[in-house]
Amino acid sequence: MKDLNSELKEKIEQVDQMLLDTLPREEGYQKTVYQAMKYSLMAGGKRLRPLFMKSSFEFFGGKDEPMLDAFMAAIEMIHTYSLIHDDLPAMDDDDYRRGRLSNHKVFGEGMAILAGDALLGYAYEVASRAVDDAFSAELKSARGASLDLASVQRLGRGVRALRILGNKPGVYGMLGGQVVDVELTGQSIAPEVLDFIFDYKTGAMIEASLMIGACLAGASESQIEKMREAGHDIGMAFQIQDDILDVTATEEELGKPVHSDEKNDKTTWVSLYGMEKALQDVQDYSDAALAILRDLYGQGAEDIFLYRLIQKLIHRKK
Amino acid sequence: MKDLNSELKEKIEQVDQMLLDTLPREEGYQKTVYQAMKYSLMAGGKRLRPLFMKSSFEFFGGKDEPMLDAFMAAIEMIHTYSLIHDDLPAMDDDDYRRGRLSNHKVFGEGMAILAGDALLGYAYEVASRAVDDAFSAELKSARGASLDLASVQRLGRGVRALRILGNKPGVYGMLGGQVVDVELTGQSIAPEVLDFIFDYKTGAMIEASLMIGACLAGASESQIEKMREAGHDIGMAFQIQDDILDVTATEEELGKPVHSDEKNDKTTWVSLYGMEKALQDVQDYSDAALAILRDLYGQGAEDIFLYRLIQKLIHRKK
Repeated sequence: MKDLNSELKEKIEQVDQMLLDTLPREEGYQKTVYQAMKYSLMAGGKRLRPLFMKSSFEFFGGKDEPMLDAFMAAIEMIHTYSLIHDDLPAMDDDDYRRGRLSNHKVFGEGMAILAGDALLGYAYEVASRAVDDAFSAELKSARGASLDLASVQRLGRGVRALRILGNKPGVYGMLGGQVVDVELTGQSIAPEVLDFIFDYKTGAMIEASLMIGACLAGASESQIEKMREAGHDIGMAFQIQDDILDVTATEEELGKPVHSDEKNDKTTWVSLYGMEKALQDVQDYSDAALAILRDLYGQGAEDIFLYRLIQKLIHRKK
Repeated sequence: MKDLNSELKEKIEQVDQMLLDTLPREEGYQKTVYQAMKYSLMAGGKRLRPLFMKSSFEFFGGKDEPMLDAFMAAIEMIHTYSLIHDDLPAMDDDDYRRGRLSNHKVFGEGMAILAGDALLGYAYEVASRAVDDAFSAELKSARGASLDLASVQRLGRGVRALRILGNKPGVYGMLGGQVVDVELTGQSIAPEVLDFIFDYKTGAMIEASLMIGACLAGASESQIEKMREAGHDIGMAFQIQDDILDVTATEEELGKPVHSDEKNDKTTWVSLYGMEKALQDVQDYSDAALAILRDLYGQGAEDIFLYRLIQKLIHRKK
């Protein structure tokens, strides 16, 4: 089996190249917004959401689906838009992100708002274009007055993936969590509300990634629902780990200021439950996600990339 | 024939009701963002884009397409998101919109950014859900191992409509125009750049409305392209008229401050070409759009709602 770190590095490079190929070309009167989009989209990052999507696709035996790349690009674009807008002075007012100046510090507030809007819109543009292209290709290959159900079902998976991509980043998902996070900044937060924020703000996008990957591979409704649950668990573990790292990591490791939660008087998993329980919860949520994968896959699940990736995340340092 | 004003009033009320039914319910931890979305979406307005979409659908003989309402709601939500973000202090810094305080003056800047993001995302959520529902219904009704081409083509129209909805509001459309508008504020603008801004910022969304209406009704590619051209012409006429009204209308008529372009030192069609040519250009662009409709429809085009609506816009006072 390949070493996970080198496998991960290779996959991240593939995602980076694909994102670069998907971005609009930097020409035309509006080229500043292209540059602002690219600045944040290509700022590095772990590419976790596209990697989750692809490895979920492969987990369910998916192969050769031209729509997959577009959805991988779309989910990373939506993630990036949320980071750009979260960093704005009217929101978290962060000057740094991934070790470099945040978007509005380079391009100004107005352009940063537009660059975020542009990435959100472009995500849907890229994904719907891919589904439409698949449609045109299938229709072209149709013989006679009907299309075989297998082809129709494949197209239906693309449309269902668009629906998930429409739902999970929005008010019933990531954005809903961000709303509550922004509204309650500086106030003490009740445990059930912190749960809501973690589930929505972080969990929803990981759910979307795993669900879309499964969906495009032809997984059943109940399998997709299982992946949603796994995504929820991974999201919780990931966000709790984020709170832990804000206390334990160095600024160099994180590429952004540490102890920012304490400075901003923010209720975190650590401040609410203490470090010991926080560490245990990361382990428990990760274990729950891994149990779902073992349940779905049966013997050999432990060798699967997705499984090893989740294991690795428990111990991440940034 | 019904009086256009009362017909218009009735249709606007129907759109208003449909939008109200489509909005998320104001409950849950994130309810502030629902209120902020509703505040701007239900602030009145002419509902031109949904009306263009529906009348284009009917122009091509469209009937009973459950997906239509969702796309009408989506285009109005996208329009509203762009207004909320345009009004922000980092952009045009407008305190009023449609006779009431702009979104950020009521909900604060952070929530206004999120409300705009939410409306943009929710537009795609609503539209992709409608296409997915149509898919599920068609698949359920399939007999045997294939689906008849007519059904597949109908679903294909929904997907194509999603693609247009993804493309026209974005960097190659409305947002691209807004980028250039924001960047060049306070600078003198060359004629070809002003053309670009009008075409992209205003034209693209009217193009999208007419194209999606035509597409969902089953119009051909070349008919949809004709409607795109008509949309371009209407957009130009509409935006030039906007510049004219900023000079000639009262604040009461517009529901927002007048002479704002002059105050902001903004290059407008009137400042560039003079009032006389501006008035003539509104007439000429409108005529060009009407000629396209007559060409597509043949005899009786003049009685069609879409045709009369365009005629009315030439003489609008707000």
